[in-house]
Amino acid sequence: MSTVRILNAKEIERLFHLDMAVAAVERAYRQKSEGAGQVWPMVFHEFQHGVADLDIKSGDLMAEQIFGLKVVSWFGENGEKNLPALFGTSLLFDRCTGEPKALLNAGPITGLRTGAAAAVGAKALARPESESLLMVGCGHQSPYLIAATLYVMPGIRRVQVANAKNPARAAEALPALTEKVAALLSACGAERDYTVTAAADLEAAVRESDVILTATPSYEPLIRAGWVRPGTHLSCIGADMSGKEELDPELFHTAKAFGDDAAQCFSVGECEKPHAAGILGSLTEIGDVLTGKAPGRQSPAEITVFDSTGIALQDLASAAVILEKAEQEGAGLTAEL
Amino acid sequence: MSTVRILNAKEIERLFHLDMAVAAVERAYRQKSEGAGQVWPMVFHEFQHGVADLDIKSGDLMAEQIFGLKVVSWFGENGEKNLPALFGTSLLFDRCTGEPKALLNAGPITGLRTGAAAAVGAKALARPESESLLMVGCGHQSPYLIAATLYVMPGIRRVQVANAKNPARAAEALPALTEKVAALLSACGAERDYTVTAAADLEAAVRESDVILTATPSYEPLIRAGWVRPGTHLSCIGADMSGKEELDPELFHTAKAFGDDAAQCFSVGECEKPHAAGILGSLTEIGDVLTGKAPGRQSPAEITVFDSTGIALQDLASAAVILEKAEQEGAGLTAEL
Repeated sequence: MSTVRILNAKEIERLFHLDMAVAAVERAYRQKSEGAGQVWPMVFHEFQHGVADLDIKSGDLMAEQIFGLKVVSWFGENGEKNLPALFGTSLLFDRCTGEPKALLNAGPITGLRTGAAAAVGAKALARPESESLLMVGCGHQSPYLIAATLYVMPGIRRVQVANAKNPARAAEALPALTEKVAALLSACGAERDYTVTAAADLEAAVRESDVILTATPSYEPLIRAGWVRPGTHLSCIGADMSGKEELDPELFHTAKAFGDDAAQCFSVGECEKPHAAGILGSLTEIGDVLTGKAPGRQSPAEITVFDSTGIALQDLASAAVILEKAEQEGAGLTAEL
Repeated sequence: MSTVRILNAKEIERLFHLDMAVAAVERAYRQKSEGAGQVWPMVFHEFQHGVADLDIKSGDLMAEQIFGLKVVSWFGENGEKNLPALFGTSLLFDRCTGEPKALLNAGPITGLRTGAAAAVGAKALARPESESLLMVGCGHQSPYLIAATLYVMPGIRRVQVANAKNPARAAEALPALTEKVAALLSACGAERDYTVTAAADLEAAVRESDVILTATPSYEPLIRAGWVRPGTHLSCIGADMSGKEELDPELFHTAKAFGDDAAQCFSVGECEKPHAAGILGSLTEIGDVLTGKAPGRQSPAEITVFDSTGIALQDLASAAVILEKAEQEGAGLTAEL
């Protein structure tokens, strides 16, 4: 029988912090570039269009000696049953023996690893002297993106939060969001000096920001190409399904595109529409920038876009580091399978 | 947090028996035919050719209100580490909410559900008056196939076991195999009256058998077309990967082909080579025979072949019935995820 460690949401929240997520995601991108990490075909199923779906993302992380999968199920009508709409469940295996090793509630991993992805893109591609950050979207993901970016770019002093459709929503969300950002930074002992305000006007906020993060469920451009000033970096995580977009495809006439997985960016990411329209021919994978195989930003005036669609290796690398810590501490439950 | 039930190998061996496996597999085939069960694309990965591989089979079983997956990893060099080469791990979810429900060691399920598949094919397609059974292959799977077929076809009186390459191996394997067959039948309270002997000559045994089961890892035909007498039924479970075969493709000039999943049978099953050679144009799915949508055997002289490649729904239906029994008994471990 195999011994399997079971880590629930509470344990993972206790064990896993921003600094670990940033390191894990950066490692995952590097390993993909070095051929030490492999993404297997994704299984996607819609139980009912717009009501319930699921995906199974799996892959192999040789350097961490694990392989595994994450099942994300979204059941939009769960609220009526007082249940969360989203469940994330990860299963990890030992890469030397194929033996099951761990079952994890991947819910608390997703926020941190997604925030870390946007931040790793910003750190690699934004101008190092960047001082102003704009977060477009004020939902569940936003504090994770802001905190992770503040963590990796301590020079950022001003954070604005915008809701593209309804500016009042950003102001309403601000107190809880600010508190969560502070808690995420403090949980990993990071002290940062910054202000957070709500943006009254999206265009004006875009025009004055060095780094822009987007995390919305939009199916139409929110940011016009003409608004983005030279030297801006954008990390976009909203587009993760065919048809979704947050940026004006015209932006890619001048902006340089980067992504986590080229094929996935062109099929479901922010790059899907500019690619289909023939505006964008190719993109550079972020892992190749991190390992020095490909150049990143080449001038202070360049506009850079990082299209983060989400890959299994981010989850696997995060799960691996959580599992290592849990094993050291003897945390969670172990069961004979 | 979700409550997940964890069922290990010992619990599953205690809870799950032949009668349940036969009923579950038959239900799975019917549900596929009725559109109430759906198989999602399989993920297959070879870590190292001939040394280590894995597959992830997933699907949706609406009637049982579950969806889920099974990961089977095979690491051929595990023997050196005193570990089994094969691990099977299943994860089940509630189809109404997407919530994780159970983690199961699928190892003890696989033998029973695979034996049940061969038997369900035989029961549906063999001549009801069949009395003689030949098992080609004397490995781990064989007792499950024999016992399940004896269970569903109580008229069978004579069982022969053959090893195609080395007849002595069948004689050596006989005592343990016979004991296991008896234990499997007795575990579900089934009494059958039969003899089991080792076949000295494969051709002679084929020529005198009503029902033939094959479960070998062969990549070349073991049974010649000319050996199979009119009226014979063959259930073949060995071919589960491109290139594998146990029957002479020429047999399909006269035999009528049935399978669990047409696309999978043509890509990895016993039907792959006769289909590629243009001998076999189409096959009937067993579920359509069970639901009466398509005819099965149409005359006592017909030769019928059931190609069982293994589908996720067999595992899901088996896991569902195990989980239901475990919940009633409060068996296994429950963990808050």
